Amino acid sequence: MTQVSANTDLIAQVSWDADGLVPAIAQEFQSGRVLMMAWMNRESLQLTIDEGQAVYWSRSRGKLWRKGESSGHVQRLRELRLDCDGDTLLLLVEQLGGIACHTGRASCFYRVLQDDGWQPVLPIIKDPEQIYE
Amino acid sequence: MTQVSANTDLIAQVSWDADGLVPAIAQEFQSGRVLMMAWMNRESLQLTIDEGQAVYWSRSRGKLWRKGESSGHVQRLRELRLDCDGDTLLLLVEQLGGIACHTGRASCFYRVLQDDGWQPVLPIIKDPEQIYE
Repeated sequence: MTQVSANTDLIAQVSWDADGLVPAIAQEFQSGRVLMMAWMNRESLQLTIDEGQAVYWSRSRGKLWRKGESSGHVQRLRELRLDCDGDTLLLLVEQLGGIACHTGRASCFYRVLQDDGWQPVLPIIKDPEQIYE
Repeated sequence: MTQVSANTDLIAQVSWDADGLVPAIAQEFQSGRVLMMAWMNRESLQLTIDEGQAVYWSRSRGKLWRKGESSGHVQRLRELRLDCDGDTLLLLVEQLGGIACHTGRASCFYRVLQDDGWQPVLPIIKDPEQIYE
């Protein structure tokens, strides 16, 4: 990731929604696997750029969420992309520990639609109780 | 994509937001490229499954949006995934024409953060005026 100091301009060029948020998709840089989708506000985007690792805004907890702060499963930022409408971010990251999901799986998108409904297809790499002990 | 008839259960298992929507990420099945992010409501998800191609809900136009209806750049559904919280969908698709973006680029995520701000890095494959003529 090129070192870029966050500045007002590049933050202002994002089309923040009425709540001051945009969706941020995390994709594993090496494999191309889509890991998760979370939300960012202006501050979390600035911190993500400044710190070189994913910092989201937790809507449920109403606070900044440094991904990996309790699990160690930090996402190192390799590239940051913005879409045509400016209202969605795509983070290309190195996923430390190879686990993005709080269920202990590589990706949060572990359920696939099959004949009998949504079925989990990714293995649990690490027991969540061990991740968050 | 396995043929699945949409039913109340699998639609109900999605955690729709207060507006009855969820983000839907489209990823190119073959390359792993993240193409775009749009929104779905219950009806568009059901139609996506029934028709085997991406049908979104256009928030700006307030109506169903069969991706490719005017451009021909249809997204054939190969696999549909749901995340751990049930509030984000991931579509693995074949992108007809190799163009997902209304700007004529392969992906909507064509701007990359560089030292001098958000810079376009993907070529325009086809002039939008020719796409939507």
